Amino acid sequence: MGEKYDALRNRLNDIATVNSTIWTLNWDTQTQMPEGGFSNRSKQMQVLSRMVFEQFTDEKTHQLIDAAAAEVEGEDADGNTARTVFHARRDYDNATKLNPAFVSEMSALATIGQQKWQAARAQKDFSIFQPTLEKIVAMKLQEAELRGYKDHPYDALLGQYEPGMTTAQVKAIFDAHKPALIELVEGIKANAGAVDTSPMHGTFPIDAQRQFGLDVVSGFGFDFSRGRQDVAAHPFCAPLARDDVRITTRFKESNLNSLLAMMHEAGHGLHGQGIHEAIDGTFLSWTGMGTMSMAVAESQSRTWENMVGRSRAFWQWAYPMLQAAFPGQFEDVPLDTFYGAFNRVQPSFIRVEADEVTYNLHIMVRFELELALISGELQVADLPEAWNAKYEEYLGITPPDAALGVLQDVHWSGGSIGYFPTYALGNLLGAQYFNAAVAAHPQLEDEISEGKFDTLLNWQIEHIHQHGRKFDGNELTKRITGKEIDPADYVAYLKGKYGAIYGL
Amino acid sequence: MGEKYDALRNRLNDIATVNSTIWTLNWDTQTQMPEGGFSNRSKQMQVLSRMVFEQFTDEKTHQLIDAAAAEVEGEDADGNTARTVFHARRDYDNATKLNPAFVSEMSALATIGQQKWQAARAQKDFSIFQPTLEKIVAMKLQEAELRGYKDHPYDALLGQYEPGMTTAQVKAIFDAHKPALIELVEGIKANAGAVDTSPMHGTFPIDAQRQFGLDVVSGFGFDFSRGRQDVAAHPFCAPLARDDVRITTRFKESNLNSLLAMMHEAGHGLHGQGIHEAIDGTFLSWTGMGTMSMAVAESQSRTWENMVGRSRAFWQWAYPMLQAAFPGQFEDVPLDTFYGAFNRVQPSFIRVEADEVTYNLHIMVRFELELALISGELQVADLPEAWNAKYEEYLGITPPDAALGVLQDVHWSGGSIGYFPTYALGNLLGAQYFNAAVAAHPQLEDEISEGKFDTLLNWQIEHIHQHGRKFDGNELTKRITGKEIDPADYVAYLKGKYGAIYGL
Repeated sequence: MGEKYDALRNRLNDIATVNSTIWTLNWDTQTQMPEGGFSNRSKQMQVLSRMVFEQFTDEKTHQLIDAAAAEVEGEDADGNTARTVFHARRDYDNATKLNPAFVSEMSALATIGQQKWQAARAQKDFSIFQPTLEKIVAMKLQEAELRGYKDHPYDALLGQYEPGMTTAQVKAIFDAHKPALIELVEGIKANAGAVDTSPMHGTFPIDAQRQFGLDVVSGFGFDFSRGRQDVAAHPFCAPLARDDVRITTRFKESNLNSLLAMMHEAGHGLHGQGIHEAIDGTFLSWTGMGTMSMAVAESQSRTWENMVGRSRAFWQWAYPMLQAAFPGQFEDVPLDTFYGAFNRVQPSFIRVEADEVTYNLHIMVRFELELALISGELQVADLPEAWNAKYEEYLGITPPDAALGVLQDVHWSGGSIGYFPTYALGNLLGAQYFNAAVAAHPQLEDEISEGKFDTLLNWQIEHIHQHGRKFDGNELTKRITGKEIDPADYVAYLKGKYGAIYGL
Repeated sequence: MGEKYDALRNRLNDIATVNSTIWTLNWDTQTQMPEGGFSNRSKQMQVLSRMVFEQFTDEKTHQLIDAAAAEVEGEDADGNTARTVFHARRDYDNATKLNPAFVSEMSALATIGQQKWQAARAQKDFSIFQPTLEKIVAMKLQEAELRGYKDHPYDALLGQYEPGMTTAQVKAIFDAHKPALIELVEGIKANAGAVDTSPMHGTFPIDAQRQFGLDVVSGFGFDFSRGRQDVAAHPFCAPLARDDVRITTRFKESNLNSLLAMMHEAGHGLHGQGIHEAIDGTFLSWTGMGTMSMAVAESQSRTWENMVGRSRAFWQWAYPMLQAAFPGQFEDVPLDTFYGAFNRVQPSFIRVEADEVTYNLHIMVRFELELALISGELQVADLPEAWNAKYEEYLGITPPDAALGVLQDVHWSGGSIGYFPTYALGNLLGAQYFNAAVAAHPQLEDEISEGKFDTLLNWQIEHIHQHGRKFDGNELTKRITGKEIDPADYVAYLKGKYGAIYGL
């Protein structure tokens, strides 16, 4: 490359490195820091965020982008060089659209929002949160105007998490599979007796859960010489760099949810460990300034948690190990009984505990409400009622109070509007990508039943992981499947799997 | 204050906050990071160090210092405001004296130096390290010239760790107590049989060591809601902030050294936790740009490790707990037998394992050799021989090879010349300050024998801890004791204690 591109690249790499440091602090906050550390930590985060934001949004960055763009013209548009310049420009434009006063007002509002939301949830009283949420919605609308959009203000918000995707596209995708999901849930409800959930009741010692989970994710291919596993109140993955990826889970003696969290975060972790060396630590990696496709990210965690970790093939391999890890608990339980129980479908109020079938319905409720708020078709005051109506309509249940209803998720209180859809899109992409891997390697599921996961992992590395955030979700999906994001694969997967389990 | 002082203070506080982040990364490297993480970590450290150095040495800082100095003229010279400006100017002058080319050459040489030193030590062959050490000595001389000095180039190097202290002062202090130490060692050698060391031989389960150590340092007053304790290959303390202080130790089943390390690091930790809220996180705290007095820092760790942790009074309280923690090991061992064994004096080759009596002699060897090298009176080629001769003269033993001799410490290989004296000065100050505390609170040692440590800790907080790095070692000592740093207290302490143990 030329010296102008090099100058831009060096500046961007420094920014990625400081972002990696911010991730490191974040990880420490959630896994190691003593309770007294909050005040110093918040100063550290503030100063580093400000330094990195000032450096990135400096006019100097703009000049470097222009100079580098001229220099690299004619390069392969999908190469790292052209893509670096492309992302730099898009992220720069995005970062400079909001003025500092707006950003700091939004940040202050988010802090108040989270306090009010916590208080409201504790008291199961939406009215405590309502006035703040009204301000948040108003500010997000203002943000959409500042950022600009083509068709709908929600596009501008969605784009912060899912670059290149539009509200219309998400709506079409959701509308296309909502009826099928509702129908499947109803069928399962009618046949609920087909699954015996009693094997899942018991006491599961935490040391055994930890060891079993570590064995599983090591088996998946998570490399502990380039990562670690800790406990956190809210499980997450911190991909500091290709060779330092930190995953987390949480344990309860009364269930095996720690395993699902560990497989989920290991899915993110494998994604992080699989990035190409040429992209690791650069602006095209996870620690660049803009976001990567959250749907693609989620597709990888959901693949290992669900397509693999909840599959019959996986349990053919893992079940004897599980039986040995918890002596007595599963002794007389046949594999298929356990498999059914582990995959039990039941409409519930809590999104994060939802099964594969109901999960996207939880998301659709949120997406439709967000859209209605941003469109001005719904007032914040009417949100609890609208929430409950949709739960009744899609899942057949009505939350008994606001804590289990409209106050369930932290997202809105922190100003995250437009994030929810990526969870559901991740489920869809998980199925689409998994099918593409199976098409390329028809023996894949046989291998999984023998505890052999490297064919799948290597396929993911080649087609997904290595690229970091180089491609948007739509682009990557087109490259891999030749098609758009499409719910058909996921619906077919659910119908096949749950039809068999519930005898539909 | 006025707005110019505020502008300077804000800039300096940001720098202190980034330094606190660098400390956080450092702690993570040594206690948590997976082995793969080195390359990313080194980038993180490099980028943050560069950012903070560039910001601090920018001409803008200089202007702010001048403007603030004019604004605060007439303020109390010992107040935080005047002191902040004083430190800012001294640290700025110090940081800008070396040109970037020199700094990066020194940094590269330090990396090579550490590699060569490791190879030389592994092969017990000084000649592998010699050419690099020659370059290091030459560069340190050049550094002394760049920094400037009044009497001796060594002053400029010493001043990096012990601001305000001169070579002549250190030499006078060392010469004043060297004969007494040599005499004491000889007396102890002649009476070595007075101490039965057999109680220290055994197997000490690591969990019991950890729990006992945590009980002890909690007893001292280390607040685990504002700190934590981990394992590290080389124990250290990371005072990220007043309310987030992290200490470390290392465990071996064959001895109780983990306890000494924990008490030592807890001494640093209490120092960090005791800083005044008005100084915490500012340029006057541990994370400012320049150093704090390393001798004062070491005096606090040595006080809790030695003046307290090796005292008979402490063991009157702690011995029954120790006996309970290691059932069988000390059952039939009377307190005084254990106390003698725990304080056994024996000349050895290893500084870091040295007892209270021989420790300063190890330091004198190093200081005198450093001084001779920097004065040009000694050639690097002649260093091993000179090292061995001094060990024979001061400690009566001759290292059998270079690994146990001249290659023992990491310091020189990384370019740290001028650091060693602070360890010995720390021992002297530990005794001087402890005596001042006893003079103010004559019941102090009785309290220690009952496991009551708050009178001592509160005295330290009031006179030492709260100030951070506001005062240099000489100033602080004058404020506390009304005298200069003086070895008399330490010598009297050693003579009294070891005279009793060895029946001299």
